[in-house]
Amino acid sequence: MKNSAGREIPEEILKKGWKPHQGKDAYNGTEFNKVGTRAKVINRGQESKLVGSLEEAIKGCGMQDGMTVSFHHHFRDGDYVVDIVMRELKRLGYKDIKMACSSIGSASQVVADYIEDGTVTGLTTSGIRDRIGEAVSNGKLKDVAVLRSHGGRVRAIEEGSIVIDIAFIGAPSSDEYGNASGKNGKNNCGSLSYAETDAMYAKHVVVVTDTLVPFPNKPSHIEGVYVDYVVTVDEIGNNKKIASAAARITTNPKDLKIAEDCVKAMVAMPYFKDGFSFQTGVGGPSIATTLFLREELKERNMKMGWIVGGISTPMVEMMKDGLVNCIADVQDFDTGAVASLGTDPRHFDISAAEYANPFSKGAFINKLDYVILSALEVDVDFNVNVLTGSDGVLRGAPGGHPDTAASAKCCIIVTPLVRGRIPTICDRVVTVTTAGDAIDVLVTDYGIAVNPMRQDLVECLTKAGIKLTDIKTLRDKAYSIVGKPDDIQFHDRVVAIVEARDGTVMDVVRQIKPFDIND
Amino acid sequence: MKNSAGREIPEEILKKGWKPHQGKDAYNGTEFNKVGTRAKVINRGQESKLVGSLEEAIKGCGMQDGMTVSFHHHFRDGDYVVDIVMRELKRLGYKDIKMACSSIGSASQVVADYIEDGTVTGLTTSGIRDRIGEAVSNGKLKDVAVLRSHGGRVRAIEEGSIVIDIAFIGAPSSDEYGNASGKNGKNNCGSLSYAETDAMYAKHVVVVTDTLVPFPNKPSHIEGVYVDYVVTVDEIGNNKKIASAAARITTNPKDLKIAEDCVKAMVAMPYFKDGFSFQTGVGGPSIATTLFLREELKERNMKMGWIVGGISTPMVEMMKDGLVNCIADVQDFDTGAVASLGTDPRHFDISAAEYANPFSKGAFINKLDYVILSALEVDVDFNVNVLTGSDGVLRGAPGGHPDTAASAKCCIIVTPLVRGRIPTICDRVVTVTTAGDAIDVLVTDYGIAVNPMRQDLVECLTKAGIKLTDIKTLRDKAYSIVGKPDDIQFHDRVVAIVEARDGTVMDVVRQIKPFDIND
Repeated sequence: MKNSAGREIPEEILKKGWKPHQGKDAYNGTEFNKVGTRAKVINRGQESKLVGSLEEAIKGCGMQDGMTVSFHHHFRDGDYVVDIVMRELKRLGYKDIKMACSSIGSASQVVADYIEDGTVTGLTTSGIRDRIGEAVSNGKLKDVAVLRSHGGRVRAIEEGSIVIDIAFIGAPSSDEYGNASGKNGKNNCGSLSYAETDAMYAKHVVVVTDTLVPFPNKPSHIEGVYVDYVVTVDEIGNNKKIASAAARITTNPKDLKIAEDCVKAMVAMPYFKDGFSFQTGVGGPSIATTLFLREELKERNMKMGWIVGGISTPMVEMMKDGLVNCIADVQDFDTGAVASLGTDPRHFDISAAEYANPFSKGAFINKLDYVILSALEVDVDFNVNVLTGSDGVLRGAPGGHPDTAASAKCCIIVTPLVRGRIPTICDRVVTVTTAGDAIDVLVTDYGIAVNPMRQDLVECLTKAGIKLTDIKTLRDKAYSIVGKPDDIQFHDRVVAIVEARDGTVMDVVRQIKPFDIND
Repeated sequence: MKNSAGREIPEEILKKGWKPHQGKDAYNGTEFNKVGTRAKVINRGQESKLVGSLEEAIKGCGMQDGMTVSFHHHFRDGDYVVDIVMRELKRLGYKDIKMACSSIGSASQVVADYIEDGTVTGLTTSGIRDRIGEAVSNGKLKDVAVLRSHGGRVRAIEEGSIVIDIAFIGAPSSDEYGNASGKNGKNNCGSLSYAETDAMYAKHVVVVTDTLVPFPNKPSHIEGVYVDYVVTVDEIGNNKKIASAAARITTNPKDLKIAEDCVKAMVAMPYFKDGFSFQTGVGGPSIATTLFLREELKERNMKMGWIVGGISTPMVEMMKDGLVNCIADVQDFDTGAVASLGTDPRHFDISAAEYANPFSKGAFINKLDYVILSALEVDVDFNVNVLTGSDGVLRGAPGGHPDTAASAKCCIIVTPLVRGRIPTICDRVVTVTTAGDAIDVLVTDYGIAVNPMRQDLVECLTKAGIKLTDIKTLRDKAYSIVGKPDDIQFHDRVVAIVEARDGTVMDVVRQIKPFDIND
């Protein structure tokens, strides 16, 4: 059966109860029941939740084979907690472990080993990279992995699609009762937004910290009232590694040109007025838009209302320079952002639910004017892939992409037309992570294309003298430069479901077929 | 059947599913399921939740006869929101309304009229006073009222015993998306802690404000993600009336003497060491203990760790003077406390759940060293009544009394031996709100009695040279001064259940029998 993004959803998946995607607003206005959570009564006599070892906490939570453990990714490439906890679970002999991660990256390569040896059999995550992505793409994970957006993950937990048995929350500081913060420690990561839903909904919660502080550790991102155990380790991570290459501002002239053109398009739209709201992802041209935006705002003596999402130092500097009123932070991409969060009252954190939960009474992104996002591929229907590489292997992250694209008034994709020998604009993306109905404008180094559904934007950009092109022309140009690549070969087996933020199936990812020179 | 506090619980109540109280720790360590809440999907297209009238919000929430509406009491005697909303519900013709209040007082007398005319048929609250108490005590409410502690109310909502159809949350400021705060407005009340559980669990949430501020109104006590509608009114309350007589420091020499003796007893206990934690209720001698505590701390060059609960200016001044590290605020008792909250980072708010939810993995009160509480009556088994007056009529508030008494390491009751012609210490309290197993020490103007269960405290007080007496001796003294009053006459009908914080029945209150001079 084909879903609204034109992707064939296999019968085997539909038979399991999954529903095909029906468009970005299909559930808008409907009601549902959140799941009731399991809770424990501790109303006297427990002075401390601190236990002497991770083993004690794991056993105290009643860990068993087949259970689901969860992790957050605020430490990004500097995370040690996934590694520490998973090695301990392995050492203790647990098998058939399901992992529910907000994202998982190169710092957690041990998980690839555990997928290969069958210790880990299930995985839901937003990002999936390196050897973990290869293991899943090669069919090593027993279950079908589920890739979820940040907002979709909150929805899945709240409606009971993800049931977390034990949430392991790495926290830069905690008191003995589990009031935990992303600050006040020796390795601060800033916001802990992605872990907040885990704390509220997991059956058991273990805070893992390297900095124990006196009770009460307030303000706290994680409330002790949800926490079963507190465990100390030497180091929960290396916060210098939070800032990945993707989060640094580019000096690539092609990327800068795209960013400049993106801001020109923004300026021409009716949303560009005092107090507008703005989000940009990390990576090449996306984050570079802040540079040009700064100049436009200064020149026009304008001020943004708020910035939301993952935060980096250039955004903090815009706030300090009076170019934006405040920053609603769900993740910090560098130590400058970490230092600013909570220190300046204009820079506060919001939970992942407040940020992007689609099944709520209104997340912040519902009021977002512009979101600037990147893409690995965009097809002629404006469908975007940010998950699978040109070889069909899992190596990306939907993150907040599908959430913000669907909710913002204007979603602009910024991407070079080709990367190396690979066309970015193509007939058909390998995997749809964000459907074309959520994408409004595409800015490339070879021109700007507007989604035909947005004739209002075509008009205002044209009126502003911005030359537009057609997405098929961009595809033709891309193919003319690097040629049309052969289709990637896959086995039939579905290894991952790309879940839309509303819980429907946006696409599936199949097991990769090893390249055969004789084919 | 008699419960563990020695109170007869009528069969008619047990048949309805209520269980008799079994002691303060009966559920400690058990597990249970929280209730799943009803939620709505608003994932695009709604720019504002602001509606033009309360009527529109009420109808938008699908109000029907028989539904439950909830309110918080942070404005205390200055509250206008209960009055405004209940009058509007009446005007719109709704009947059989159930009210779930964190407390309800003299500002909401219209509710007494609506109980009498049958518009309001159900009530759960902590405090109940004036004409509302009289109406219930006189059997005018159709249902049996349920009196709950602050922690017990959170438990009841989270486990589904209270199902709120519409929470009306009066908020000093809100943005158009329902991010609401107890500050930033023209009538600030400070903390909104008692309303936080309502926001999270109610099927529908209406924020009522008199100060609309630009989005996003952060930090917010109520997250917009839970809010359906925002309504503006001229005034939500008069915050000058928050400070009631009960919240002012006494100048009564008898009360001051009790407070001084209470602090002497505190000093003699092992809990009196650097970093100890402290809570005191409002009313006469309770709040006066802060004056003597201040002197003791200064003299010994000591510092408290934290104060929790309802906060008044003397506590804020102790923090400013370096006598306590921080204040965990659930309610502000005067404008000085309101002004300090959130302005000084050492003075922060915590939710009612973090404060005192007994069915959680550990509320703040579990780590409380001392709580100083008042009483209307104390009997020879140390059972305390803070609910019914000497005439048997409902005119008090369990509030956090049963929660903190049961959890704190040392609960001290401070009360004069007699009040006017009424003995405070007696054979048998009219109503048990806090069972004797939670009370450790009784300090009166005629001596100090220690609960025989606490021989450890008897020893350390005696060792410190503090002269102790026996509670029966105090009762005899009280009776010798004012005589033993006749028993109050009640009808058989149960008009209110006093629910223990764990959901069991602590006691029942029966319909008052009009005084008959010929009896």
